[in-house]
Amino acid sequence: MSNAKNPDPEQSPSQPTGADRRIPEAVIRRLSLYSRVLQVLERQGIEKISSTELGERLGFNSAQVRKDLAYFGQFGVPGFGYPVQDLRNNIKRILGTDREIRVALIGVGHLGTALLSYDGFRKQGFLISVAFDLFENLEGVGAMRVPIFHINQLERRLEEFGVEFVMLAVNPEAAQGIADRLTATGISAILNFVPVRLRVPSKVRVHDVDLAIEMESLSFYLK
Amino acid sequence: MSNAKNPDPEQSPSQPTGADRRIPEAVIRRLSLYSRVLQVLERQGIEKISSTELGERLGFNSAQVRKDLAYFGQFGVPGFGYPVQDLRNNIKRILGTDREIRVALIGVGHLGTALLSYDGFRKQGFLISVAFDLFENLEGVGAMRVPIFHINQLERRLEEFGVEFVMLAVNPEAAQGIADRLTATGISAILNFVPVRLRVPSKVRVHDVDLAIEMESLSFYLK
Repeated sequence: MSNAKNPDPEQSPSQPTGADRRIPEAVIRRLSLYSRVLQVLERQGIEKISSTELGERLGFNSAQVRKDLAYFGQFGVPGFGYPVQDLRNNIKRILGTDREIRVALIGVGHLGTALLSYDGFRKQGFLISVAFDLFENLEGVGAMRVPIFHINQLERRLEEFGVEFVMLAVNPEAAQGIADRLTATGISAILNFVPVRLRVPSKVRVHDVDLAIEMESLSFYLK
Repeated sequence: MSNAKNPDPEQSPSQPTGADRRIPEAVIRRLSLYSRVLQVLERQGIEKISSTELGERLGFNSAQVRKDLAYFGQFGVPGFGYPVQDLRNNIKRILGTDREIRVALIGVGHLGTALLSYDGFRKQGFLISVAFDLFENLEGVGAMRVPIFHINQLERRLEEFGVEFVMLAVNPEAAQGIADRLTATGISAILNFVPVRLRVPSKVRVHDVDLAIEMESLSFYLK
């Protein structure tokens, strides 16, 4: 979940910066959904789709689809619809996923190891190129042949590996300190798996994935 | 993320049922955050906390904290604050996490295996007791000694293992079919890791954890 989807979005410590503020985050998230549908269509050899059909596959109406895409330009062809491959390429370009993005994983505990072993990220263009941990005995080569360094080497290795994007899976006590160091290095995107609300400057974007909240809040509805 | 936090919450196909509708989901999610803070305080031997202090640790104001808790009763003591251990026990009772909840994992692929190996769930009281997959060669005992059965045995084994809660990590094509079968068995809570919007009756609660959307939407802000 992103900060904008925290229990209290208006109180979230991080906000999108300058130009991004024009485009609601919900639109960005829907682009990712559109892209996924278009990928399926592309695989099925389907060449065009209307805004109605695209919306129907996601439970949105056609006006929503058209409005979302209009933020970024004119992609539809009147009387034809959207060319599937073209639209998908455009969305990938808009999202910035038309290239490989180098990711660092910080914290190689249980969850970190799981993330390191998960190959779904690579398929989306996110390459975990380097990992860090506090424990020296973890140094070496981890799952998926990702090199693991001691956290002492964070700043140096982030630069060496050209990291743009960090997944944070350290223990809660360490999280804010690491976030501060990341901010100082100029990292601008953190996917935070730690159940802690990070305080970061507005230029840094944090999305939280909090499995504990998901589980516990679901549990409430069991009764 | 829950459906209520999907890009278009108002269009979400699943809604809380009857009585739950009175309590906003955001409140439930904040209870989980409060519980976490209280756990830390308890470990530190702190016996009481004011609504202001509790809020400050999460970036909420004291009125928010008081309002949230007031949905469930009167927990504070005037001039004293909240008794930490008591409040935590009450919140756990409200969330239904004051007992062990039996969970099934469906889909033992890369992500499923990672989830199976992750011991964080157990610490919260969620016990993955059984797993299912389509591939017969996975049958046997998986990570964390969890028995894995063929998906053919789903209905029978869910009952045998007393499963209340399902984590879904199958491939997108299979997801809706499995969701339909789960609904028929009376499962009412699904944590969905599949990048698909499940259509379920209103009595079934689905929370989506969509790492692809989190990554892709973060990527947008890299530029």
